[in-house]
Amino acid sequence: MVDYVVYGRGSFNQLDEIIAPQRKEGKPMIFLVDHFFEGRSLINSIPLKGNDKIIFADVTFEPKTTYVDKLAKQLKDEFGAVSGIIGIGGGSTMDLAKAVSLMMNNPGSSADYQGWDLVKFPGVYKVGIPTLSGTGAEVSRTTVLTGPAKKLGMNSDFTPFDQIVLDPGLTANAPVNQRFYTGMDCYIHCIESLQGTYLNEFSKSYGEKALELCRNVFIKKEKWDNESDDQLMMASYAGGMSIAYSQVGGAHAVSYGLSYLLGIKHGIGNCIVMNHLGEYYPEAVKEFKCMVEKNKVEIPKGICKGLADEQFDSMINVSLGMKPLWENALGKEWEKIMTKEKLRALFEKL
Amino acid sequence: MVDYVVYGRGSFNQLDEIIAPQRKEGKPMIFLVDHFFEGRSLINSIPLKGNDKIIFADVTFEPKTTYVDKLAKQLKDEFGAVSGIIGIGGGSTMDLAKAVSLMMNNPGSSADYQGWDLVKFPGVYKVGIPTLSGTGAEVSRTTVLTGPAKKLGMNSDFTPFDQIVLDPGLTANAPVNQRFYTGMDCYIHCIESLQGTYLNEFSKSYGEKALELCRNVFIKKEKWDNESDDQLMMASYAGGMSIAYSQVGGAHAVSYGLSYLLGIKHGIGNCIVMNHLGEYYPEAVKEFKCMVEKNKVEIPKGICKGLADEQFDSMINVSLGMKPLWENALGKEWEKIMTKEKLRALFEKL
Repeated sequence: MVDYVVYGRGSFNQLDEIIAPQRKEGKPMIFLVDHFFEGRSLINSIPLKGNDKIIFADVTFEPKTTYVDKLAKQLKDEFGAVSGIIGIGGGSTMDLAKAVSLMMNNPGSSADYQGWDLVKFPGVYKVGIPTLSGTGAEVSRTTVLTGPAKKLGMNSDFTPFDQIVLDPGLTANAPVNQRFYTGMDCYIHCIESLQGTYLNEFSKSYGEKALELCRNVFIKKEKWDNESDDQLMMASYAGGMSIAYSQVGGAHAVSYGLSYLLGIKHGIGNCIVMNHLGEYYPEAVKEFKCMVEKNKVEIPKGICKGLADEQFDSMINVSLGMKPLWENALGKEWEKIMTKEKLRALFEKL
Repeated sequence: MVDYVVYGRGSFNQLDEIIAPQRKEGKPMIFLVDHFFEGRSLINSIPLKGNDKIIFADVTFEPKTTYVDKLAKQLKDEFGAVSGIIGIGGGSTMDLAKAVSLMMNNPGSSADYQGWDLVKFPGVYKVGIPTLSGTGAEVSRTTVLTGPAKKLGMNSDFTPFDQIVLDPGLTANAPVNQRFYTGMDCYIHCIESLQGTYLNEFSKSYGEKALELCRNVFIKKEKWDNESDDQLMMASYAGGMSIAYSQVGGAHAVSYGLSYLLGIKHGIGNCIVMNHLGEYYPEAVKEFKCMVEKNKVEIPKGICKGLADEQFDSMINVSLGMKPLWENALGKEWEKIMTKEKLRALFEKL
């Protein structure tokens, strides 16, 4: 679990006080901030002291192991050691901050640690401050990275943040489309885990609550207001907690293929896929389409048009490699249901 | 937050593996077990090693600071230091385990630390394993103790457990009345916090979920089964988390008076009081009475009969001293509403 959780509108203003006890003589706090905020007013509220540094994270694409390694090396070269890494941004920034923190104290490349419980040493102090709600990356035990061989997280007991600051005010100015795609990551998480074959009451309770909050925000409410930001931030948190004892499913497995080959970001990738999963999640896909319409959002189409056979194969291999996701979605006999041919036909529809 | 949470039916059997990394050469793990389990089969599943010791906790009354101090002294005298304290039982045992862990590393008496953020040093490794669901003590940042001067917890960042093991199988054989009273602690928490004046979306989300689970268990379900234990354990967890950013209210404030003077345990005390709070929580009291009837439970009556004036005054003083609870329940002007006379009349009805 994350050790310290602060939730509250305006709590970002307490950051100076929150991180103060973790500052070490001469070692800076590094604020890793989504490049979206470059030149925006949020930057002026960052409590810089001494040799603290802001680094704008390029999250045009999802985080790569090479980028994590480069950031960690840059910090080691410049400072030797740092007091902590504070990630401010969406899911990609959260994952980058966690990974860079770990790589400050672990040898080699982050690619060496893609998997389960491979990380050897705790990272430096790390704080997550989400500015988009939905991924659950602020509470998860992983940090999804695209490496030379795979898209897979550094899953370990050392991965969760030491502290998160959940200030719904920070999500208020997110671009509408991005907010929707990221929110749908949470919705789709919940559908996949609640309808999956892996589940217990812990994950069910969190998943149901997250789903209820998503429905309130994207279906019931007539307009976006502070309560929407408050509730979507809790939905993200609860959705992330729900994953502890459950698993995502088909939409995520297919979306991983898209992002591996085409660099499609996770939230929008999930939406592109969900649009075509009516056969597997009939009620939810109906509800999803309703939310798309109500929130006046475009879901891209035709993104696999003109791809070569080997490109389709590459996506299919990545996707079918996510065995636990398929097993959760379709049961132990999933390989009989989701064949290469069937998956190819699905990718072609996207 | 609690650092490590394991939830799952049968997870108690993983205890050996869970605590193994925390064992220190020559220093025992101390299993502080509710005396209810003396001679019962659970004891045989405790993974004793080396000089580990089982201590049966006398929880006939709620934990006293003198008892905490005595247990800590006994352990220091016998072992010097211990690897950890593992509490197995209901809320009283949870609180005792947390408090004894803290007093292994903090000087003086536990009474010195009743309050907020007075504890100076982390305790020894501590694990909470609830065998009754409802109090939320397994996740709380406090440990309610009756001291020479007050009933108040050791609230601190060092107080939460390092690890909890939530195994709903352990609650299966709880006495029906006790299970109900403890479950109602959660229900009453939620009513008080959701209808209170302190609340944010974090506490609201958890409180609503806990309430829904309580209703499912005590109203909707026709008979008690494994799902009831699963859900009530999650209700307790969510109810405990909800308290992070909210506050309990009138039932707790009055019940604290009862337990201070008469030693009435918290769960049953809350039920005795809730029965008479229709003026403040009309809908909830109706629902509460419904649950009492449906679950065929007796709520004691006439417990204040024949008390002397100074005894009433003592209870009234303890109760009115819980200012934040009353403010949460009745607003900033609570002192105009809940006068000494009004409270005396309420105590007389109990």
